[in-house]
Amino acid sequence: MRGAECLLRTLVANGVDTCFMNPGTSEMQFVSALDQVPAMRALLCLFEGVCSGAADGYARMLRRPAATLLHLGPGLGNGLANFHNARKAHSPIVSIVGQHTTQHLRFDAPLSADIEAFARTVSEHVRTVARAEDLGGDAAAAVAAACDPPGQVATLIVPADFSWSEAGPPGGLAPRARFAGPDRCLVREIASLVHRGGSVGLLLGGSTLLDRGLETAGRLAAATGVRVFASRYGARLACGGGRFAPLRLPYFPEAAASALAGLEHLVLVECNAPVSFFGYPGRPSSLVPEGCAVHMLAPAEADGAQALAALLEECGRGPGAHDPQPKGSPPELTSGVELTPDAVGRTLARFLPDDAIVSEELVSSGAAVLRHLEAAPHFDLLPVTGGSIGQALPVAVGAAVACPGRKVIALEADGSSMYTPQSLWTMARERLDVMIVILANRRYRILDIEMERTGGSAGPRANEMLDLRHPELDWVKLSEGMGVEATRANTTDEFLAQWTEAMKRPGPRLIEAVTA
Amino acid sequence: MRGAECLLRTLVANGVDTCFMNPGTSEMQFVSALDQVPAMRALLCLFEGVCSGAADGYARMLRRPAATLLHLGPGLGNGLANFHNARKAHSPIVSIVGQHTTQHLRFDAPLSADIEAFARTVSEHVRTVARAEDLGGDAAAAVAAACDPPGQVATLIVPADFSWSEAGPPGGLAPRARFAGPDRCLVREIASLVHRGGSVGLLLGGSTLLDRGLETAGRLAAATGVRVFASRYGARLACGGGRFAPLRLPYFPEAAASALAGLEHLVLVECNAPVSFFGYPGRPSSLVPEGCAVHMLAPAEADGAQALAALLEECGRGPGAHDPQPKGSPPELTSGVELTPDAVGRTLARFLPDDAIVSEELVSSGAAVLRHLEAAPHFDLLPVTGGSIGQALPVAVGAAVACPGRKVIALEADGSSMYTPQSLWTMARERLDVMIVILANRRYRILDIEMERTGGSAGPRANEMLDLRHPELDWVKLSEGMGVEATRANTTDEFLAQWTEAMKRPGPRLIEAVTA
Repeated sequence: MRGAECLLRTLVANGVDTCFMNPGTSEMQFVSALDQVPAMRALLCLFEGVCSGAADGYARMLRRPAATLLHLGPGLGNGLANFHNARKAHSPIVSIVGQHTTQHLRFDAPLSADIEAFARTVSEHVRTVARAEDLGGDAAAAVAAACDPPGQVATLIVPADFSWSEAGPPGGLAPRARFAGPDRCLVREIASLVHRGGSVGLLLGGSTLLDRGLETAGRLAAATGVRVFASRYGARLACGGGRFAPLRLPYFPEAAASALAGLEHLVLVECNAPVSFFGYPGRPSSLVPEGCAVHMLAPAEADGAQALAALLEECGRGPGAHDPQPKGSPPELTSGVELTPDAVGRTLARFLPDDAIVSEELVSSGAAVLRHLEAAPHFDLLPVTGGSIGQALPVAVGAAVACPGRKVIALEADGSSMYTPQSLWTMARERLDVMIVILANRRYRILDIEMERTGGSAGPRANEMLDLRHPELDWVKLSEGMGVEATRANTTDEFLAQWTEAMKRPGPRLIEAVTA
Repeated sequence: MRGAECLLRTLVANGVDTCFMNPGTSEMQFVSALDQVPAMRALLCLFEGVCSGAADGYARMLRRPAATLLHLGPGLGNGLANFHNARKAHSPIVSIVGQHTTQHLRFDAPLSADIEAFARTVSEHVRTVARAEDLGGDAAAAVAAACDPPGQVATLIVPADFSWSEAGPPGGLAPRARFAGPDRCLVREIASLVHRGGSVGLLLGGSTLLDRGLETAGRLAAATGVRVFASRYGARLACGGGRFAPLRLPYFPEAAASALAGLEHLVLVECNAPVSFFGYPGRPSSLVPEGCAVHMLAPAEADGAQALAALLEECGRGPGAHDPQPKGSPPELTSGVELTPDAVGRTLARFLPDDAIVSEELVSSGAAVLRHLEAAPHFDLLPVTGGSIGQALPVAVGAAVACPGRKVIALEADGSSMYTPQSLWTMARERLDVMIVILANRRYRILDIEMERTGGSAGPRANEMLDLRHPELDWVKLSEGMGVEATRANTTDEFLAQWTEAMKRPGPRLIEAVTA
């Protein structure tokens, strides 16, 4: 069996049956072997950042890895920004990168580069296959490493000649480490803090933002009065449908610090101590209130929901037990007037289909849209995790591939969508059920605020660098140019009409919501 | 003076007065300082790969650095592919990357990453500013390092707080190293090889592909009978207009090896020994004929044209002296029929404006187009240097900024243009005089050939991964979506008419030449 086929069979045997790819010459054998291994689904992306972001979205929904297949160092380079987001999301991904043939490496060919150095920027597990007969074992080890709690990008670099050489048999099932169970001693300590009645906050991250963790956290809040917060940068957050809704920490440090004000103890569950996104003049980076003690109930490598359940058990369920928050009534729609992020949020809150997946990178418009969605039916939110721009469209690709029965909504800003617009082509090609809303304010609006916050001022020349009006991007044409049907909404009524019509059919479909 | 202003003034004082940028929060002070330092021209790009490619194109034309300004590790990540090409082109570039504030670094903020590790993949000179008062000196040192022969990407990482802190005075003029002069002893040795009358070839790279080197090489060929070749991967090649035209080594190793067959001595000038682009089963990577001795007349760090002049002097100019090749007559146009790369090449050869700059990344169509251009008027060819896809459009941006009086022609394939399509927006915004021709064959056609060459076969599933038809990209809409006027040509007549009309006005302008 040739190396490439051995590699594919090993991946499939280990549960990796989806590959987002942008291959080149060094990866042709892998592509060729797709016809021998039909269990591997291959999806072509026209830019590598789409591959890495799609694998991230896929992993966030299924909590198991997809593979990516990229071409040499520079191809991997193009994937790094979204691998960075995946790394911060703890998404398991198997990143396969082709390398020159072993005898070609000592020549300084144009595409020669230090691929391992590229990979190490986002990946703890980096291995270059040393012999064709190692391919199966190395591939199985890469899957195991990717799944090592809490999940990571594992990189396997494959010299082209090993792909076309005779290799050993496919690698077997690699053993998987499990997420650690609760530390009983720590649980008792934290329970006693809660019993002592001080002001205790729980900050939830990782898997505790999904149903099991949220429900337990809601019971804990009802039973003990602890305040519950959600990390802003968790990989996935179950929302709406009357679910317990912890306060998601705001983006700006003043608002986040004021949300946490008064806490004497902050208990972390699958996340680190909260920190401001950026440092600003005269402001501390840490968001932990002065004098507040920080406790780690469960690190990212542990099963936080199980730790929460143990804590609930230890604290006693109390008389009220589970007190799910009321759903609230959906916000009133505004009508006819100029379109704003607020109006988009109101429409979404009323007309979001049940069980949707929302991939969100709205940047400056995020708060105004998302605050309305608490009243929406159930949806999974896939937020920005690492701050690399260009996440939401590729993540929507991956989520749609992972969950074919669910409507995926990609909420994007016009600035950020220009980093990975090629995502639209893969959506059209694979007929993914994605509804894309581009909030077009024709500006890097967030930077107006950040400019002021960092003590700068925008004179006319600086102002030009934040201005996207000259020329205006035409998202209808861009979208149609990549095969995705699109319309433009300038008013609230237009947006409502286009949204309603679009929800009747499967996607992909794009609305450019002009909010400038 | 604040650090950001100090940085800008130092760059300008050292001759770096153009910056291609995609800034974020950590770089706001740099943007703000643009109003204090009007001598710095700032150009906004919507994706970082456009910045790095544009700086490469700028450096190839002017042989001095532009700056790029990118946002933290992931922003730099998006620029790496075109920095790789710039590295292989020996283009001097000053890459400024913002970093978190120094007090923010110890927290694991979402955008935290090892920026130096990102930078080292493409850059030998990597420095993180350690104190605000070092900014001026460090910036001057970065310019000097960028210009260190033969030129490189020098990276300066600037923590945000140093940009808004009080810094020292701007850095002074950094000393510049010069390109080394000829090694007289080596020149005499090589002259004696030539005198002995064996079969001697000269392989030209770097600056010897420009007028001074080409003219001297032409005289040498006429005087001594040496065969002269051009490296395929030089940064810039002066062509047409009756210039001496060395044989450019073909892409595929069989053709390249047969061009070099029979040589007993191969003399390298500002380039390395020729190597195949990829390794293939059963083929050697080196293109040097068996038994042929390789001599380095001038490494990349030396002035190869001066070394050639010394060699000519040593060999004696001979009776024929300079014998410029005849221009040849332009190829016949074909008419009415379906459009092919050959027909595009014929039209270009006849109607290329004088003194144009041609940024070329045609991939599978390159040979068919370029072979006709030998009969064209003078133009500078900017070829693929490092093989990172997505080069030609950004390089055209930089070349147009560098040379405002000259028409820039970007020849792109439909597959490769999708890696950095955002270039079009900057062309529209800056009203750059660029004519873009997208040769759209709706396929990663080169990979059909590479698949076969690497011993693979494309069954139906593999074939899908090379197929760009579902959906077809509409380059007219994509281009108009970014503000660049565009038309589609399906026949030779349509292409000729559109080209002729377009040449009457300044660009940007795009033609989608459908050759599928």
